[in-house]
Amino acid sequence: MLKVYGDIYSGNCYKLKLLMTQLGLPHAWVHMDILKKETRTAEFLARNPNGRVPVLELPGGVFLPESNAILHYLAEGSPLLPRDRLEHAQVLQWMFFEQYSHEPYIATSRYIIRYLGRPPEQEARLLERVAGGRAALAVMEQHLQRHDWFVGGTYTIADIALYAYSHVAHEGGFDLAPYPALRAWLARVASQPGYAGMDEFDAAIQAG
Amino acid sequence: MLKVYGDIYSGNCYKLKLLMTQLGLPHAWVHMDILKKETRTAEFLARNPNGRVPVLELPGGVFLPESNAILHYLAEGSPLLPRDRLEHAQVLQWMFFEQYSHEPYIATSRYIIRYLGRPPEQEARLLERVAGGRAALAVMEQHLQRHDWFVGGTYTIADIALYAYSHVAHEGGFDLAPYPALRAWLARVASQPGYAGMDEFDAAIQAG
Repeated sequence: MLKVYGDIYSGNCYKLKLLMTQLGLPHAWVHMDILKKETRTAEFLARNPNGRVPVLELPGGVFLPESNAILHYLAEGSPLLPRDRLEHAQVLQWMFFEQYSHEPYIATSRYIIRYLGRPPEQEARLLERVAGGRAALAVMEQHLQRHDWFVGGTYTIADIALYAYSHVAHEGGFDLAPYPALRAWLARVASQPGYAGMDEFDAAIQAG
Repeated sequence: MLKVYGDIYSGNCYKLKLLMTQLGLPHAWVHMDILKKETRTAEFLARNPNGRVPVLELPGGVFLPESNAILHYLAEGSPLLPRDRLEHAQVLQWMFFEQYSHEPYIATSRYIIRYLGRPPEQEARLLERVAGGRAALAVMEQHLQRHDWFVGGTYTIADIALYAYSHVAHEGGFDLAPYPALRAWLARVASQPGYAGMDEFDAAIQAG
């Protein structure tokens, strides 16, 4: 059976849970506590030398890190990953945008506020991260003013990747009022079959 | 004809030039001066709202940004992008590693030193970026101690993506002496058919 090492409140891990639920893929979820440095143990570093979650364990003991590479692996052959060459590249375009221009700003702002309690010595870093996050949200808003979904007119793993931290951006101090098209898209994602939020998935994981 | 907007001394742009040369893909190269903010004009933002190079222009006026998504688009169907599902995902794994854990550290250190002249007010940021870059190089070294290439035993776009900033890491203040397997891999990449360095490509672009 597939196994995921992750923390459901990490957007990068939540992405996988959402996709696997929507694709109906049975899997085990192994909770990793990042604050307790469980991703820095020798045991975990043998699975991912880069020391990050999520990691997908495949049958046969193959470990695949990097959330968006895992989304790609799992979605291949499904309607959530277009086969058209250009649309395929555009899905990747938005997933690289997410990891380079979105996640480092929005996830980091959320981490400083939600997990570190916004300590004064992080304030300058927080302001810089918030500015970058607003720029990313503005790029998304511009696209979503003209498109319902990021690629090809349908829900794909590009939407899942970008949804993960966008839907909890308020926990990073972002006010989404200036981004109406983005808010409408968040609602569209949340109305997809099989959708659940972080709290719902957490309750299901706790219940075993 | 394909058209690339870029700066050949940007690793993210150089990647494309190297791949397109090795695949024998005719293309026009439009030089963009990042320091002169040519990527922030209204004209350029219409091509890429995120204001970054490289951007690939396809026939018909379609613009594709994000260097590693472009590599994927161009390499599809070639031996440089494996068709096997897991190897395909592993190529993406290393390309996401490159954009998240490598480029933001090594390219930024190089930018601070080579382009900004290492101003004292950037010193704290530089030290933090250098530490992250060393961590990325250590992850690569560990992999390359056991493998000649990043995925599947052959040269792929994962190697091209990681080579781009690794081969100019010294310009970012990185000493590669502690990474012998990485240095051997750099030499293997540089011995591939059709290989050229930044200066050679620059001379060719200048010559028209």
